[in-house]
Amino acid sequence: MTNDDRPDPQHRFSRQVPDGDNMPRLVCDDCGFVHYENPKVVVGAVASWQGRLLLCRRAIAPRKGYWTLPAGYLELGETPEEGALREAREEANAQLALEALLAVYAIPRISQIQLIYRARLLDPKVWPGEETQELELFEWDEIPWDDIAFPSVRWALNDHRATLGTENFAPRGNPPDEDGSY
Amino acid sequence: MTNDDRPDPQHRFSRQVPDGDNMPRLVCDDCGFVHYENPKVVVGAVASWQGRLLLCRRAIAPRKGYWTLPAGYLELGETPEEGALREAREEANAQLALEALLAVYAIPRISQIQLIYRARLLDPKVWPGEETQELELFEWDEIPWDDIAFPSVRWALNDHRATLGTENFAPRGNPPDEDGSY
Repeated sequence: MTNDDRPDPQHRFSRQVPDGDNMPRLVCDDCGFVHYENPKVVVGAVASWQGRLLLCRRAIAPRKGYWTLPAGYLELGETPEEGALREAREEANAQLALEALLAVYAIPRISQIQLIYRARLLDPKVWPGEETQELELFEWDEIPWDDIAFPSVRWALNDHRATLGTENFAPRGNPPDEDGSY
Repeated sequence: MTNDDRPDPQHRFSRQVPDGDNMPRLVCDDCGFVHYENPKVVVGAVASWQGRLLLCRRAIAPRKGYWTLPAGYLELGETPEEGALREAREEANAQLALEALLAVYAIPRISQIQLIYRARLLDPKVWPGEETQELELFEWDEIPWDDIAFPSVRWALNDHRATLGTENFAPRGNPPDEDGSY
């Protein structure tokens, strides 16, 4: 795994517009090395077992105690699919089969994009990982809508329902006029 | 625009596994601040005008002199669609209408994911931006396959052709057994 822009303790950074660029960047005052900052990728899944949907109650901030999908930051050297499977293992000890790219969401306020997959649970036996207080396989009518951790979790659950039974479809995006703010 | 993990010149980083984590991270020796490194997102487009496809000959390293799509790193605070439109403006002074998410590619070797859109040029009058030596609108049979900058450019051109006329489709991924190596 390589990453050209790891911050280096040898550098002293300040914000400057590098030559030939059009945005301020973190530039080393001594040698001119540019540290680019980039949006982050979240990968996750809406995972179902016989029509019930897996949600995890968060054991950590932000939104501790609220319900979310198994999802998290893509790691270096991973494909998005590998990352979504890893997050389900870490947060719910869940083994998934990914079926489709359900949605690509953008939360520009926090410079985040999310790739959320539709998945089947291969085994309904799941139990909480370290970042999870509690797990549930919810019927649609039981989903705790008032205690959902993030708007994009709500979007993904709705998009999962809207695309059920569809095999080859364009991934959904943010709902109209929603940018992920509460 | 916010970004919680900007490297801070006040910190002195070394690689350690933080408490509760399972991978080495850049951790400040003094205060324990963790700087996470994350994969990068490239956004771009296969843009057509009356069946001809826009390619740009690179004026910069890597692969200077080779042909690529208008594409580049997603910036903080952008949606992927905004980023793809911006890159087309910057590299080709091109105005696009995005039609579909053509592909999601993963190049785990360099911790990169790519979101490539299918787009129409709104005006065939295009001219090189600073990072472009030369532009061409190529008929399929004229594409300079031997002088393509990156494997994912070839994938995207082929995937564009494979999905022509299709309106609602799952984005394509890497071709089987291809990871983006030359």
